[in-house]
This record gives sequence, C-alpha cells and structure tokens, in this order.
Amino acid sequence: MAAAEAGGDDARCVGLSTERARALLADVDTLLFDHDSVLWCGKTAVPGAPEALSALRARGKRLGFITNNSSKTREAYAEKLRHLGFGGPTGPGARLEVFGTAYCTALYLRQRLAGARVPKAYVLGSEALASELGAVGVACVGVGPEPLQGDSPGAWLDAPLDPDVRAVVVGFDPHFSYMKLTKAVRYLQQPGCLLVGTNMDNRLPLENGRFIAGTGCLVQAVEMAAQRQAIIGKPSRFIFDCVSQEYGINLERTVMVGDRLDTDILLGVTCGLKTILTLTGVSTLGDVKSNQESDCMSKKKMVPDFCVDSIADLLPALQG
Amino acid sequence: MAAAEAGGDDARCVGLSTERARALLADVDTLLFDHDSVLWCGKTAVPGAPEALSALRARGKRLGFITNNSSKTREAYAEKLRHLGFGGPTGPGARLEVFGTAYCTALYLRQRLAGARVPKAYVLGSEALASELGAVGVACVGVGPEPLQGDSPGAWLDAPLDPDVRAVVVGFDPHFSYMKLTKAVRYLQQPGCLLVGTNMDNRLPLENGRFIAGTGCLVQAVEMAAQRQAIIGKPSRFIFDCVSQEYGINLERTVMVGDRLDTDILLGVTCGLKTILTLTGVSTLGDVKSNQESDCMSKKKMVPDFCVDSIADLLPALQG
Repeated sequence: MAAAEAGGDDARCVGLSTERARALLADVDTLLFDHDSVLWCGKTAVPGAPEALSALRARGKRLGFITNNSSKTREAYAEKLRHLGFGGPTGPGARLEVFGTAYCTALYLRQRLAGARVPKAYVLGSEALASELGAVGVACVGVGPEPLQGDSPGAWLDAPLDPDVRAVVVGFDPHFSYMKLTKAVRYLQQPGCLLVGTNMDNRLPLENGRFIAGTGCLVQAVEMAAQRQAIIGKPSRFIFDCVSQEYGINLERTVMVGDRLDTDILLGVTCGLKTILTLTGVSTLGDVKSNQESDCMSKKKMVPDFCVDSIADLLPALQG
Repeated sequence: MAAAEAGGDDARCVGLSTERARALLADVDTLLFDHDSVLWCGKTAVPGAPEALSALRARGKRLGFITNNSSKTREAYAEKLRHLGFGGPTGPGARLEVFGTAYCTALYLRQRLAGARVPKAYVLGSEALASELGAVGVACVGVGPEPLQGDSPGAWLDAPLDPDVRAVVVGFDPHFSYMKLTKAVRYLQQPGCLLVGTNMDNRLPLENGRFIAGTGCLVQAVEMAAQRQAIIGKPSRFIFDCVSQEYGINLERTVMVGDRLDTDILLGVTCGLKTILTLTGVSTLGDVKSNQESDCMSKKKMVPDFCVDSIADLLPALQG
C-alpha cells in the first residue's frame, strides 16, 4: 500500500515524490478536491492544476469537488471549473461533480423540513444559496441588505418575523448586519427552529495573499448570541455523506486533497480517507509540525498523509 | 472575617443571610456594582435596588459602577443612575462613579497612542463611545451605517482606508455590517494597529427576559477574521485598574457585585476582591454548581463568595 511504502501512519505528512505519487494513484479511484487555494485563487487557476486534473481524468479517475464556499450554486461552480480548464461532464443530464455547502444545506433542509406545511428558511447568505434551497422546495426570506429598523433595542426586537420560518441558514453574506443577527437569534428562540451554518472558515482567500472575512465569523456571531451550534460543511461529516450517497465511495480508494488542516484534512481523516495537503493556501508545514507535536488529540488528528507544494506536482506521476 | 464565618473558600457561594450580610458589610468600605440586570433591567430599576444603594451610601460606603456596556458615556450612565433613584454625586466637578468600557477604552488609547501624530481610531460602536474617545483627543471614523460598497470582494478590499487610523475599537454597534468587518480586518493587517474589544458578553439583557445580541458576538467576528485578541472590559484586569487608579482600592475591603460568573465574578476573583452573585440576571445557581463541580481550573475560579436573589436582599442588614 502506497501510504505504508511512504511511511504510513508513523511518518505522516510525507512529501509526495513522483514515485510515491504513482504508487498512491495506483491504489486510488476517486479524488476529492477543495476549490479555493487548491484549484484556483480568486479568478485564477493554480498553475499546472488544470493539466493535473485533465491527466487524472484521462487515467479514468473519478473527481469530486467539495467546497465550503456557499456563494455559488453547484451549476455555477461547474461552469467555473470548465471556464478555468478543469473540464467536467457537460450537456443536459450531466452528473455534477460539485458538492458545495449551498447544495448540501438544501439536501439537509429538504430532509429535516419534510413535514412542514410551508418549508421556509431565514437566509443570511447569497442569492445562490437561496436558489439551491428553492430548487428543493424550501422558500427563503432575508437575502440582501437589511439595515437597522428603529432606534432602540425594543424596536429591533419588535420588527415583524415571518411565521413560516422553520430554519436559519448562515452562509457567506456580504450584507450581514446587526439587524440580521437580531432576527436570526429571534427565529432561533422559537421552538424547533433549525440552525445551519455552512462552514467555520475564518477567511476566504483571494489572489495575491489577499483575503476577506470568512463565513465562520458570521456563523460564530450567530452561534454566540443564540447559544446554538450546527455546521454542515467541512469538517462536518454531513457534506461527505452527501458525496458518498451520490458517488458510492470506497473509503480505501479515495483521497481528499485540500489546503486547510482544520477543514479538508480533518474531514478526510475523520471519514477514513487518504489525505493530501497542498501548500498553495491557508495551512503551512509549520502548522502541520505544530499539530504533530501537540499533546491535544484533536490537533494530532489534523495531519495529512502526504503533502505537495501544489497539485501540479501530481503531473509527472501521470505522464509517460 | 465574614467570608470565613460564612464558610470561606471551602464553601463558596453562600446565601447571604441578614446576619452574614451585616458581618460582611462591616468589613467592607467599597462596593463595585455591575449595571445591567443588577441595578436595572432595560429602563426599569430592580425592585428595592435603589433603596439598598441609598442605605449603603447612608452608611458611608463608597460605591462604584463597572459596566461592560459601551453604548453610553459615563455622564449618561450617571444621569441614568440618578434618574432611576440610585443617587450619586451631582454638580460641577462631581467625581463620577461610573467606569464603563467606553471610558476605559479612551484611557487605554490615550496611553497607547500617545506618540501618534494624529491619534485616530476606526470605531465599530456608538456615538457615545466616539464621544469618550474624542474627550481624550482620539479622533474617530466609522460610526454609523456602512453598507456594502461594490459588488465583488476585490471592490470591498479596494474601498479607501483612513491613513491616520492606528486602532480598531469594537464596542456595541447596531450598525455592524460585513463592510465594517472587512475594513476593521484591513486596518488590523497594518503594522502596529491596535485592537480593542470592549467586552465579550454574548447577550445584552433587556426587560422581561428579552435580550439582544451582545458586543462579544461582534468582537468575536473581528477576532476570528483578524486572528487577534484584545479585551479591556470585565473580566480583563484593565477595567479594574482604571477604577483602582481613581479610587485607591483596598482589595480586602472591596466587594464586586454582579450577575455574570464569566465577567463580574471572574473579575472579582482575579483581582482578589470579595464577590457577590445576584440572581436577577444571566447566571444561575445551576451555573455555579456546574463550575464548582468542573475539573477545569478556569471554571472553578468562576464561583462567587456569596449569592443573593437580588441586591435588595442587602437592605435588612442595613436597617435598624
């Protein structure tokens, strides 16, 4: 087994030489990739990444994409993948390879709100998130700007609520405001109201080392005020279960590839997948070392089997 | 010593009978009170609380008020105290008894920004907070609504920053928005830019069990995105040092009275004061028990010496 040849559990986070990569890929039929900082940074593909994915497809590997980003629908991500040269199924009825938190939130709410007369959610998030929910029959309120109404706490608490709302969804919301936070918490005080946070990422990386505040900052604000918790994105197992149900995953023959130890790698480890950390994004080898040396079990788990500077490093093992 | 008579450290959180209260008060010359849910809930005084404070004043006790709430100036709080019947010094030059986080933030920044050509702060907070900062010569930008500018992350990151800003202050801000969060984090990326969070309270209690999201929710969002920390309110020692410098506190003869274990009581314990928990607010006897039984030292510390249903319970010990 490749992992054992490369040192196995006793020597994790092994650099993936061409020889090791070849051995690993021989044992694998499915590769699951994070998007941001793995395939692309902002609007630019990571150099060599499209070629690496094309070569994987040419070798018959099945690819899947698991993103915590809730700001696009899965169709929009599929389009971005094609646009940046990562290929993917096309045409009507083509099976989508993308599992984003907007889509997975929709699956979750379809299941949990099945008995509701009018399944409806208060959404702190994008039109794309609302669109995914709408596609499974969950109506949405709250998308877009919501400035302060009234000039006192009493007035903020008296603003009307929608009586049909049965869930609060917190995704990436550039229109996040104190008024929205107030409303979210009021809905969550009502018996049976569900809370879904798409992910806990603290930052959303862009090009050139720039970043914006991530969804986790907004989720945490709601969680803190409501004293509730609920995340469906990585590292939660829920998002992997969505993939597994559609793909029929063989755990031993699947690799999770990502740039974050606390989401991508932790998800892979938790679900029993092989893991590859790519150094084009958030986590560094210093972070890996710190986790390896930690005496905290929850940190020790956040160590990948392998690491690469970039997924372009897989290319030599796929050539010739 | 009253605490010893009442059971001392080995049996903390002792109910304060009239006899015990009389013995405790005989050993005390200064009482420091939290505001919200201790003296008042929203706009209404806790029944009997004004009478208890009047009786303490009549016995020559010195009173001080330590609040994490940053939404009023200390003058405005002094006025609210008088208006609700809690008395206090009046007239020009009267020494103010209120130590709020708006005032303490001003003291902190006056000290830390002493060398700056134009001391200026980006303030996520109220006009009152800006007013306290202005009073010590720290100019403020950012107060009031700040909706999203532009329709892409690149545009949000390109919005102009004030080149003179040397600190970000996060207080209670009902106009909190993602745009403000983005700007705060951009300022904090600049070398030497200070961060002050006024407090970490998760909720701000109002009348009738209602509450709104507290400043802590907003501070945590900024901290998470910026990967920085800095709190000056309770339980941080800084706010107590502000009191101590103006009052010349004798630790052994001072009591801290509050409704929250994680702020008021923890501050008192940390600073070596006697502590009284009042059950008119956030923390319950169940919370106390849970902390007493915890094997976590940081929780074990959050246990008061005494507890009362309400500070009105001090009244019988002050009569006759």
